[in-house]
Amino acid sequence: MTLKVDGDRLWSDLMTMAAIGATANGGSYRTSLSDADRDGRNLFVHWAKEAGLGITVDKIGNIFARREGQDPSLAPVMMGSHLDTQAPGGRFDGVLGVLAGLEVVRTLDRAGIRTRRAIEVVNWTNEEGARFPPGVVGSNLFAGRTTLETLYQTRDRAGIFMGDELKRIGYLGEAEVGQRPVDSYLELHIEQGPVLEAANVVIGAVTNTSCQGGGIIEILGENGHSQTTRMSKRRNALVGAARIIEAIETIGMAQEPHGMASATVIDILPNNRINIPHKAVVQFLTVHADPEGRDRILDAIEQAVVAIGRDNHFTTSFSRNPQRHKFDFPVELVELTERVAGQLGHSSMRLPTWTAHDALNMHVVCPTALIFLPCRDGISHSEFEWCEPQHATAGADVLANMVLDRAQRPDE
Amino acid sequence: MTLKVDGDRLWSDLMTMAAIGATANGGSYRTSLSDADRDGRNLFVHWAKEAGLGITVDKIGNIFARREGQDPSLAPVMMGSHLDTQAPGGRFDGVLGVLAGLEVVRTLDRAGIRTRRAIEVVNWTNEEGARFPPGVVGSNLFAGRTTLETLYQTRDRAGIFMGDELKRIGYLGEAEVGQRPVDSYLELHIEQGPVLEAANVVIGAVTNTSCQGGGIIEILGENGHSQTTRMSKRRNALVGAARIIEAIETIGMAQEPHGMASATVIDILPNNRINIPHKAVVQFLTVHADPEGRDRILDAIEQAVVAIGRDNHFTTSFSRNPQRHKFDFPVELVELTERVAGQLGHSSMRLPTWTAHDALNMHVVCPTALIFLPCRDGISHSEFEWCEPQHATAGADVLANMVLDRAQRPDE
Repeated sequence: MTLKVDGDRLWSDLMTMAAIGATANGGSYRTSLSDADRDGRNLFVHWAKEAGLGITVDKIGNIFARREGQDPSLAPVMMGSHLDTQAPGGRFDGVLGVLAGLEVVRTLDRAGIRTRRAIEVVNWTNEEGARFPPGVVGSNLFAGRTTLETLYQTRDRAGIFMGDELKRIGYLGEAEVGQRPVDSYLELHIEQGPVLEAANVVIGAVTNTSCQGGGIIEILGENGHSQTTRMSKRRNALVGAARIIEAIETIGMAQEPHGMASATVIDILPNNRINIPHKAVVQFLTVHADPEGRDRILDAIEQAVVAIGRDNHFTTSFSRNPQRHKFDFPVELVELTERVAGQLGHSSMRLPTWTAHDALNMHVVCPTALIFLPCRDGISHSEFEWCEPQHATAGADVLANMVLDRAQRPDE
Repeated sequence: MTLKVDGDRLWSDLMTMAAIGATANGGSYRTSLSDADRDGRNLFVHWAKEAGLGITVDKIGNIFARREGQDPSLAPVMMGSHLDTQAPGGRFDGVLGVLAGLEVVRTLDRAGIRTRRAIEVVNWTNEEGARFPPGVVGSNLFAGRTTLETLYQTRDRAGIFMGDELKRIGYLGEAEVGQRPVDSYLELHIEQGPVLEAANVVIGAVTNTSCQGGGIIEILGENGHSQTTRMSKRRNALVGAARIIEAIETIGMAQEPHGMASATVIDILPNNRINIPHKAVVQFLTVHADPEGRDRILDAIEQAVVAIGRDNHFTTSFSRNPQRHKFDFPVELVELTERVAGQLGHSSMRLPTWTAHDALNMHVVCPTALIFLPCRDGISHSEFEWCEPQHATAGADVLANMVLDRAQRPDE
């Protein structure tokens, strides 16, 4: 049999969730552990209970909504993503993967299907990292790749601890993080790039990750009065930062279409107009299709920083972020994605993901699939992010039938 | 007779004040209305009371320490400056003018001189603007050039109101601001530039101000994901800001030695590394010896902003800060400075001030003199700011004898 979700209900849920933290230009602003994130979580829990699911919250606030299987001793099939957004973000990045999961459960109910394995829908905490950098940490901890203490001690720019905010919004749960068997993990997500739209293809079967990297650059100049220090004596760290930002942009542009690099964060001291800044910290991210390309970009940026520091009498430092290694998703799940799409009459193609998702962490826990849908002009992390309703429905249909296949399959 | 201050006591006071909010590199960090500013104020009030002065605090926290004159109906001669610092700042900018004032009073006591007019030592609130921009506001309000409500509503970057902080640190006084007659105002200050040191001259008689200006530039780009948006599609507001900062630096360098301009403040949104920033706000200050030069700089920066916006598909806006008009200090007080310096055997020269001081506001209230001392390498707004002890003593000696001349002079 082939399952079909209620696309209208899914769309209604997406638009309802988008109303929490709605922004003027049609996006949403629900940064992790904010009041809006709390409201979004509450709505998800409400809908999950309405659908008869059992709720578990773990110590980092990850929420698991469980539909019991015929054999409760078997590990569940898990679907999900995240409800937190960028600042501001759109209506689909993350949200689609969670709410499509809920609609898959309701679809199974309507079809009267009890699956062999349990099914769980998960909302991972702080995927975006917009308020508490870095992101993708709820699933990262679930996969045992960081510590609870590290996350509790992470602060936002106002100095507020993530641990305190979890408690404040009522999502500091009791379950140990990661002490939860998972059979397989399926994440539906907008592509956040232009490939599917350009190819006029509906379903993307993600084959592999890309080579992500980034770094932090510190530029030390010298304090001085901005209306009395001779121009030739100034060592303005903001000017040093400007030259480095420009160099990163030039290096990034030269990678197209195989790689990218941009400076996206700057903090300067004292950031007061009567004072020449003595310190600037610039952060950038980069990504390339292969590790050699990523390393070339990082080397080129490091060389530019050294040269700009030397030529302008700044003291500079350059440190690389922990790099994510490239890997392939399991072929059997890529093929399952393609097969199910075909059964449903949807076009599909294979493609990589350029950026991180919770699926990249769950890959180390269990067999994992990442399924992409087209988004308008490849735009995401933006109020103007958009996914067509028929694509959302198609994606949820694919997800439903993939979950059914995984949940019903006999022991290997 | 010629008064001579106790230079050792003055130096001891300067170093004691510097210990409040001391920084690792020998500076001080006492931004306006911080705990350290409160401690610095308390110390000043303690020393003033020790010297028998009467304390009045006005509604913006300006502190007036009064030594009564023979004829209390006459307006007092006022000396002073400010105890707040940059972030971090040095030991002399502002502090010297206040503590030299106290030492002048003690010198009069030791000499057994009762002056005809009263003498007051003032500490103006928030000269630096480091925490609550803009600066020079305590004296600005005293001169009737802003409103109490505007200042109470000024916030720091944490969103804290200036009015609330005044109350918190205990310096929300009851006296109306500006309802206080002043015969004349004398401010001793380090030059904050290299002219006196290069000329090997001890006393600077400030003849006039310069043409100050500045502006705020807003750059609007477009949100996007920093690891998935094609490089050629990015409209990174931080890159636009970098190009504008570089253009301002180039324009500023071309003015040497008649003018200056630098970008010194940047704020971007969302300032999160996974997101291409959609908004950047850059602030700059400029100064030139003449108004045409200042206007040429502002025009050049505005044209650069328009061109960079157009060529890079950013929406930009440019607004000019309120400009300060150039004026001359009264010749009689410039001549008094030179005459007193000569009597004391100190070299002197005339020079302009490039930046603002409380004296620029007091100029509209009463006859005002600004007296400069050399500072090492022209450095200020820096932990490395330095004034030689013998120069501090020389300046206080000049101040003492100028005050005596003004306070004893017969009615005109």
